[in-house]
Amino acid sequence: MALLTHTHTAGRYIRNCWYVASWSRDLIANRPEAMAIGEEPLVLFRDEAGKAVTLRDCCCHRNAPLSLGRCESGRLRCMYHGLVFDGTGKCVSIPGQQHVPASYQVRSYPTEEAGGWVWVWLGDPARADPQLIPPAAIAETAEWDLRMGKLDFEANYQLLNDNLCDFSHVAFVHEGTFAGGDRRIAETHPRITHIERGIRVERWLTERGAIEPWLGPEAAPRPDDTPGRHLDQWLTYDYLVPGLLAMRSEVHRAGTAKASNFNAPISAPLHAEFTRQAITPMTGSSSRYFFSMGPRASETQDQPALPDQMLAGAQHAFHEDRKILEAQQRNLERWPLETTSGVIRHDRGVHIFRSMIERLIADENTTLAPRDVRAG
Amino acid sequence: MALLTHTHTAGRYIRNCWYVASWSRDLIANRPEAMAIGEEPLVLFRDEAGKAVTLRDCCCHRNAPLSLGRCESGRLRCMYHGLVFDGTGKCVSIPGQQHVPASYQVRSYPTEEAGGWVWVWLGDPARADPQLIPPAAIAETAEWDLRMGKLDFEANYQLLNDNLCDFSHVAFVHEGTFAGGDRRIAETHPRITHIERGIRVERWLTERGAIEPWLGPEAAPRPDDTPGRHLDQWLTYDYLVPGLLAMRSEVHRAGTAKASNFNAPISAPLHAEFTRQAITPMTGSSSRYFFSMGPRASETQDQPALPDQMLAGAQHAFHEDRKILEAQQRNLERWPLETTSGVIRHDRGVHIFRSMIERLIADENTTLAPRDVRAG
Amino acid sequence: MALLTHTHTAGRYIRNCWYVASWSRDLIANRPEAMAIGEEPLVLFRDEAGKAVTLRDCCCHRNAPLSLGRCESGRLRCMYHGLVFDGTGKCVSIPGQQHVPASYQVRSYPTEEAGGWVWVWLGDPARADPQLIPPAAIAETAEWDLRMGKLDFEANYQLLNDNLCDFSHVAFVHEGTFAGGDRRIAETHPRITHIERGIRVERWLTERGAIEPWLGPEAAPRPDDTPGRHLDQWLTYDYLVPGLLAMRSEVHRAGTAKASNFNAPISAPLHAEFTRQAITPMTGSSSRYFFSMGPRASETQDQPALPDQMLAGAQHAFHEDRKILEAQQRNLERWPLETTSGVIRHDRGVHIFRSMIERLIADENTTLAPRDVRAG
Repeated sequence: MALLTHTHTAGRYIRNCWYVASWSRDLIANRPEAMAIGEEPLVLFRDEAGKAVTLRDCCCHRNAPLSLGRCESGRLRCMYHGLVFDGTGKCVSIPGQQHVPASYQVRSYPTEEAGGWVWVWLGDPARADPQLIPPAAIAETAEWDLRMGKLDFEANYQLLNDNLCDFSHVAFVHEGTFAGGDRRIAETHPRITHIERGIRVERWLTERGAIEPWLGPEAAPRPDDTPGRHLDQWLTYDYLVPGLLAMRSEVHRAGTAKASNFNAPISAPLHAEFTRQAITPMTGSSSRYFFSMGPRASETQDQPALPDQMLAGAQHAFHEDRKILEAQQRNLERWPLETTSGVIRHDRGVHIFRSMIERLIADENTTLAPRDVRAG
Repeated sequence: MALLTHTHTAGRYIRNCWYVASWSRDLIANRPEAMAIGEEPLVLFRDEAGKAVTLRDCCCHRNAPLSLGRCESGRLRCMYHGLVFDGTGKCVSIPGQQHVPASYQVRSYPTEEAGGWVWVWLGDPARADPQLIPPAAIAETAEWDLRMGKLDFEANYQLLNDNLCDFSHVAFVHEGTFAGGDRRIAETHPRITHIERGIRVERWLTERGAIEPWLGPEAAPRPDDTPGRHLDQWLTYDYLVPGLLAMRSEVHRAGTAKASNFNAPISAPLHAEFTRQAITPMTGSSSRYFFSMGPRASETQDQPALPDQMLAGAQHAFHEDRKILEAQQRNLERWPLETTSGVIRHDRGVHIFRSMIERLIADENTTLAPRDVRAG
Repeated sequence: MALLTHTHTAGRYIRNCWYVASWSRDLIANRPEAMAIGEEPLVLFRDEAGKAVTLRDCCCHRNAPLSLGRCESGRLRCMYHGLVFDGTGKCVSIPGQQHVPASYQVRSYPTEEAGGWVWVWLGDPARADPQLIPPAAIAETAEWDLRMGKLDFEANYQLLNDNLCDFSHVAFVHEGTFAGGDRRIAETHPRITHIERGIRVERWLTERGAIEPWLGPEAAPRPDDTPGRHLDQWLTYDYLVPGLLAMRSEVHRAGTAKASNFNAPISAPLHAEFTRQAITPMTGSSSRYFFSMGPRASETQDQPALPDQMLAGAQHAFHEDRKILEAQQRNLERWPLETTSGVIRHDRGVHIFRSMIERLIADENTTLAPRDVRAG
């Protein structure tokens, strides 16, 4: 089973899909930004209308990176020999000659902005429908007071996807941070549903103590509560192709899980958080992790520092992930593999998602070269 | 001749033999230690009985290094998803499920402690007889007051073996340290005897001055001594497969060599030192050098700082070796080889030992796949 | 066309030619210097007569670098086992034995000194005629007051040659340094002539302002000058195989270009500079850039700091080149190439010179193995 061999997936990516390339706010006017997605070197910049555009980060003249170039009125000048490209990749000026041959063209990539992110489409431009950006990944209402960040991992994107498709690791990797020493996230199982291009993960963690330091007075124990077990936590997230997470976490009075029949809570939470995250493969051994998170805006009136505290806590925890995933990557690169030992129960989400990615990659390969296959 | 082609030996190791993996004292309870031997990633720890055990440093679930895990009552928990392994490599707990499939097993390696070292056997466990640990490499009596150290080299283990099988380099690499400017160790030759799984090297360096600063007053020149030539030095060591040195060095009054007929000294030395050393291949281009050394305990009563001084001096000299061996390694890796020029007299020990290693590797390959060979 | 595919040329060099290996003044007595040319490891030193000699930087005994060795009376001792080599590479001493086999020989390379440089010939020694050192590359009269430098680039030598065969990049890479914001060096074209083993590049830049801060009072504008356009600049350089530049730059009163019919100036300059430069391939991805430059000695009487100022300015500009060329190299190494887009007008010199190098390499390959070719 492909999942279990942990094949090093360098060079294997879905191409016909939208990848997060940047936070919109990080792509400012007149400053080209280098990025790589799926082993393609990219430069992002804003054209004269302020629209985000993406070109291959190699000048078609002598391969100098255009990201070392200069934005001039929404066009990008290569600062080696001065060629100028517009946002479509067309060369519009070559110093020292009037005529610009039509062949002077850098590859451009469909680019959209949605939900605070810049999205780039690697594959066939004709299929780059902005409607294919998953709504769940960009839904972000004024309900939330969010903070944004990013972190690079020297690890293949599939290792990051694996990590986010199985939260049992929280009990161990984040023992002192997210888990707060509570191992039940590993000892019990969420409900995992196969949804369109992804999985939905839902669970209650019942009778927890107040692990989040920022819970307000209404979440404090009452005299008749069992000490340290007076709260129920509801977690639900979708994890979507190619690597997008949208999660809601709620804290309720203990008993709410049962009263809700262990489905979505039937009452309003004492506290709620939201996070959106995206994993973008850069090369076969490096990935960029984009994330935003925060509480309800209504909760920050009394605690204005709360969103920043939550971001800082999450960043600390993501460095815990990075340490183990980068070690996993080095093990996969450096040592000959022994056989791995088969699926465990917590692998279920990982397995569904890996299979989904691999089937999409295989489908693209079939679609891209049907005649070759028949001729063979 | 294999010796002379200096074949880059990455990926070629004797497997059915004991390698030094650690100083025993460095493997403390509740702290897993990462090591690599012969390109196998290893984790060492102590089980509930305090016995040193060795597993492959890759969790059989998702390849995370177990050396990032945690010892819990002599078992090792992978701190990615929480699987627990006992000292035999058997998985004894998987969070979230009662049943642990028998396939959940990490490879374990026979492990012994002897002579202050932890020894690991890479090959067939059925053949891992502790009696195969060479007695000379672990003999260490209360006679000696020793200090221990280790040093990593970015060089193939055979380059370190070569270095220790031919002490003529001492005159040049250690001109200002061990040799004290005396070139006779290069200009003359030791007696080299082929012994079981190794070589024995013996020599007198006659009529030396007092090169060791720590020699006591009884080694001082007498009025009738030839200035600077009043001492004889006796050196004898065994160098054993896979890379183990046990050496004794003695200082005598000049004339003792002759009186002993240039064999082992017939009288008690003025000063004596002992050193045991081990070379362990980590990867094809890195090795760990373990060493202990010191004078007779009887000599340190008046000079309590002497063992530490000797260790510090040796470490300084081993950095001299490291500089040249790492440069040699880089030359071998970076540049296409010209033909080397044939054996010189000082290569004899090197040649015998290299041939021994290569024959043992070849024998293992023949033994491991006899049917394949016949079928071919 | 080979030029346009930007083939990564690692491992491809002209061998039968002289390469600059060092500044003569940098090769001092009793200090061996490591260098690499065309992926050959070299050690340069001075023999007993002070003559520069070059050996392969690998001892023929055990591949230790001879550059870690010691010069002893014009011979080089390997400081691993003490073998001594003379300037021809012949081993003249092996410690511990009287006889030195004739096979003990390190490869030596023809070495010459001319024009302040040490030149090394990589190919057939029988063809190493010192007359083949290009006179233009070593012509250096007392007319000039020059300063010397060198700078390593992590880039293939062909990228450095390209850079120097097309000065249009000056308008962009050196916008704030050499170009002084004047884009005409990119907007107009020099005269490029195909000469023996090289190209000659000549041009006037007319009606410039006083861009060099060090121009003397006689170059100041006169009342009837057009403001900022009162000077003409004459640039002429030869760029020769394998990568040698000799350039003269002159500043004249505006009108001189026209009066000279846009050929070489018919009158004496207000200011003149000279520079010689050499590009030496070390490995497929690294090169050493040697350069000297300065004004006429007659100009430094009033301005003694001028030569140093010019060198400092040039070094700053060469770091600008390095940034873009190293980025170009990384792009070529890391990313699969898209098709490049064909020749532009400014590529003409680059194209001629690249073709020349490639033809010479091809000729050598044909010459070296004629029988193989016929047999095939």
